[in-house]
Amino acid sequence: MKVPVVENVLKLNDEIAMQNRLKFDDAGVYVVDLIGAPGCGKTALLEATLEKLSGILEIGVLAGDPATSRDGDRLAQYCANVVQINTGNGCHLDANQVRQAITRLDMKSLDVLFIENVGNLICPVGFDLGQHVKVGMFSVCQGDDKAAKHPHLSLVAGALLLNKTDLLPYIPFNLAQFRADVAHLNATAPLMEISVRQNRITPWLNWLTHNSLHGTAVCMVDAAGVKRRG
Amino acid sequence: MKVPVVENVLKLNDEIAMQNRLKFDDAGVYVVDLIGAPGCGKTALLEATLEKLSGILEIGVLAGDPATSRDGDRLAQYCANVVQINTGNGCHLDANQVRQAITRLDMKSLDVLFIENVGNLICPVGFDLGQHVKVGMFSVCQGDDKAAKHPHLSLVAGALLLNKTDLLPYIPFNLAQFRADVAHLNATAPLMEISVRQNRITPWLNWLTHNSLHGTAVCMVDAAGVKRRG
Repeated sequence: MKVPVVENVLKLNDEIAMQNRLKFDDAGVYVVDLIGAPGCGKTALLEATLEKLSGILEIGVLAGDPATSRDGDRLAQYCANVVQINTGNGCHLDANQVRQAITRLDMKSLDVLFIENVGNLICPVGFDLGQHVKVGMFSVCQGDDKAAKHPHLSLVAGALLLNKTDLLPYIPFNLAQFRADVAHLNATAPLMEISVRQNRITPWLNWLTHNSLHGTAVCMVDAAGVKRRG
Repeated sequence: MKVPVVENVLKLNDEIAMQNRLKFDDAGVYVVDLIGAPGCGKTALLEATLEKLSGILEIGVLAGDPATSRDGDRLAQYCANVVQINTGNGCHLDANQVRQAITRLDMKSLDVLFIENVGNLICPVGFDLGQHVKVGMFSVCQGDDKAAKHPHLSLVAGALLLNKTDLLPYIPFNLAQFRADVAHLNATAPLMEISVRQNRITPWLNWLTHNSLHGTAVCMVDAAGVKRRG
């Protein structure tokens, strides 16, 4: 065992992730790896995002879950570019699963690809999928200590979301403590406090639109002119 | 790669888990591996359990988290027999971590040992720690689809909890669907619907007391008479 083997697995994953990233850049797609615990509202956020940005950004989704196609089925009502990935006992997506899944999509037609990772605050953080940014998502229902108790996600995230703020009146949650924990771990990533259920997601839509249109990936000029953006 | 390596890891874990189980049986301690997603209320349930069963059962806790001693500190207010285990990047506890942690406790003085696993619905399910029962915990905040989407926990659990039922008026949650999903996966494990925050945990206290006093572990007679129960 076992360290050498683990390192090999991660090295192989990183090599495939780099290949994925080249494909994403070549297609001019901004790729977001969305990470959060089960039930923080990842799928609901993507439903709302697909609905709000219809006609503005062309979006695809890879939906990761241990079992069922429930998330994929939900998202397919808003978007034709959805692939469900079932991981069985696997607690995270890896770069090879992403590589295989994107063969089902016309990448050149997309502006943004979401990878909705398996609901888990830990393992998805350590696996590069080729994404341009990892976005960490929390919910007020989970308690105000989760950023501190699961620090790795906040440390690597390019943006952070706190969802279900509509439930703050009914739940003990120290918002100042949560904000302080996040700021201590990551001084640069924006923390967006949202309520998907009450349609209060404007900061997120602005962040996504800005980053996808001006981010690293889409600074590359597509000589073939397939992309609609200038 | 490397199935053989993975099998070796699991085989080694299972061997240590078996040794742990022999120690637990020898000490007459009923051991519960408590598994649930981050923020479902595991620590709050243990706080309430320690408070309610003070003087009735002698309880110890191993608290697993990636980082911080916040859970351990909370539980230490109710109980002297608490050991915090920080797993770093590790997404579950393993049998060796449990073996090391219990050297810090006087096992013969305990009736029940809780192992509060790392907040994660996936990996903790597959690792035997030597426990007598795995208890799966959900929260209504996580949505009614979580039992179906994370079926392995319900399949192996000896009992299941649905917490935060006090929030049902404020959250879309199909209770009939959740109950049906659980029953489909596991027809024998009781599903206890509770609200730790509103102190509605009586079914859980009854289940725990009944199982710890009459379960496999404590059917063994302790010749030394160290255990207080008859």
